[in-house]
Amino acid sequence: MKIEKTSEAQLIERIHRILGPAAEPGLRIGMGDDAAVIRARPGSDWVVSTDAFLEDIHFLLRLHPPAMVGYKALARATSDLAAMGARPRYFLMNLALPRACPAKWFDSFLRGMAQAARNFGMVLAGGDTTYSKRLAINLTVIGEVSPNRALLRSGARPGNLIYVSGVLGQAAAGLTLLRRGGQQPPQARSFLRRHLRPEPRLALGAWLAQHGRATAAIDISDGLSTDLTHLCVASKVGARIWSDKIPVPKLPPGLKLRQDPLELALNGGDDYELLFTVSRDSARRLPRTLGGLRVSVIGEVTREKQILLMDPAGTTRQVQPGGWDPFRTREARGKT
Amino acid sequence: MKIEKTSEAQLIERIHRILGPAAEPGLRIGMGDDAAVIRARPGSDWVVSTDAFLEDIHFLLRLHPPAMVGYKALARATSDLAAMGARPRYFLMNLALPRACPAKWFDSFLRGMAQAARNFGMVLAGGDTTYSKRLAINLTVIGEVSPNRALLRSGARPGNLIYVSGVLGQAAAGLTLLRRGGQQPPQARSFLRRHLRPEPRLALGAWLAQHGRATAAIDISDGLSTDLTHLCVASKVGARIWSDKIPVPKLPPGLKLRQDPLELALNGGDDYELLFTVSRDSARRLPRTLGGLRVSVIGEVTREKQILLMDPAGTTRQVQPGGWDPFRTREARGKT
Repeated sequence: MKIEKTSEAQLIERIHRILGPAAEPGLRIGMGDDAAVIRARPGSDWVVSTDAFLEDIHFLLRLHPPAMVGYKALARATSDLAAMGARPRYFLMNLALPRACPAKWFDSFLRGMAQAARNFGMVLAGGDTTYSKRLAINLTVIGEVSPNRALLRSGARPGNLIYVSGVLGQAAAGLTLLRRGGQQPPQARSFLRRHLRPEPRLALGAWLAQHGRATAAIDISDGLSTDLTHLCVASKVGARIWSDKIPVPKLPPGLKLRQDPLELALNGGDDYELLFTVSRDSARRLPRTLGGLRVSVIGEVTREKQILLMDPAGTTRQVQPGGWDPFRTREARGKT
Repeated sequence: MKIEKTSEAQLIERIHRILGPAAEPGLRIGMGDDAAVIRARPGSDWVVSTDAFLEDIHFLLRLHPPAMVGYKALARATSDLAAMGARPRYFLMNLALPRACPAKWFDSFLRGMAQAARNFGMVLAGGDTTYSKRLAINLTVIGEVSPNRALLRSGARPGNLIYVSGVLGQAAAGLTLLRRGGQQPPQARSFLRRHLRPEPRLALGAWLAQHGRATAAIDISDGLSTDLTHLCVASKVGARIWSDKIPVPKLPPGLKLRQDPLELALNGGDDYELLFTVSRDSARRLPRTLGGLRVSVIGEVTREKQILLMDPAGTTRQVQPGGWDPFRTREARGKT
């Protein structure tokens, strides 16, 4: 059966069956009415973000399995809540589906998204469906945070240390492997997984918000070079980062990736690690792992409004935002 | 200058300049961070809805002026808040723009949307931009309502009277006139306006929520036949409506519309009037106009789960949902 054969009502039934409805005390009215009605816990602010995940721009149907498209759509959107230190609660989904979408593909897509929703503790609260030549997934994610605890991009101060979580560039290496196709060697698995099934750093974000240790934070969706630029522009500062401190991927020779790990880390994007700044005073009391996640100091915030990359020999070069920009990147990169 | 020449950052600057940022006490963090942070007034629930407004599905670039596309995108989405009796507060916009979109078109689009935002009392709180072959506007609207006061689709009971606001079918007549093209006669103006610049019935919705007079409510976006079906399904009831009581458009002969006014009212859609049910007891105390808006009794809720249309001679026929369904309608109807 293809979507073409179904009415909007039947499509919504499919969504209800696989993605909900779940009983959730704060969700007074969920799917099936004109809008969702949600009740705040006393003493918390709402954090709201929207994200578009579009066929041929952010993912390719021939390359990406449906369950991964569903999982990643929600993971990407929820990463913005992690970057604010918020606890995810609800999401709404606007789906534009091609008429020829096979029902099997659609169910698998929904199951992938349902898995992500369970992992992140989120409930589908509403949405809208229509048809379109290309599949388009527009998500609204809603989380909560204690008042005045949200992690902002704008608080970095000269002298602060710059941290990142995890390893940067693995997702970009995974995309290269996926595009190459064929049988994937076992060493490819972790890279593919990082590209196909990213994990928003919710525990780390919540820890930073709760303990008030970060002066600024952002998630790395477009690449370190671009997202560090965003953070610096918002904070009206610059940065100096050290090439040998950036946690770059170890590319096993057997994979024949022939990519520069540092280049992948700077411009690869799609990692959804957190980039944050901490005062030197707070840094002394910061554990090396937060919520099981390794964090690395990669540089420091400067007064000069430029981003410099320094190698161990002391040579510096200016870093330009080289990551994902939908209005500059000519081709769809399949950047899921 | 075309959008192609701009980076995402420049595009966002354009949006900031025309659509905000506005100072608003509840909006703790607005555009420019990973997510918006909003603070509820004590003792109110949030009402959240999302709406897609897509080129070639909901509007046509050759037919619809950019300011109208911007205005209508927000009006349509906000109509869902009116249907819940909520007061609009914020919106987020996901824009997928064609590279070749002229900057002049885009500015005019943004100004139309800014006008709607001012009219409805809303502030842009965030969003996302990317590019796409076709223009796609996905909006998230956020309003507030007193706890347990939201108007739901599900409360209609047998014996309740069925009301609609305003006149149904004018927007559909306006679309016909617009498609015909050429010089529009002065009598066409009100129909065109209803199609191009619909008004969400916010004052009526708020009145009904505040006074607790409606047992169920929905906005008529897809057509009376379809939206009455939605309300009846949600309430597990049926309806009997009287053809001579439905407020149909008066089509001046000079316009040569040759359309059946009743057919327009039943299936035209795009009116954004409110359809609501009221107990007979409450109905006695209901003014004929609410917030300057005429309301009409058009039928009654029945136990039998079907929708019957009765003419003055007493002949009845069953009404099928004949309005807009994106998965059944073959052609893009330019249904803005």
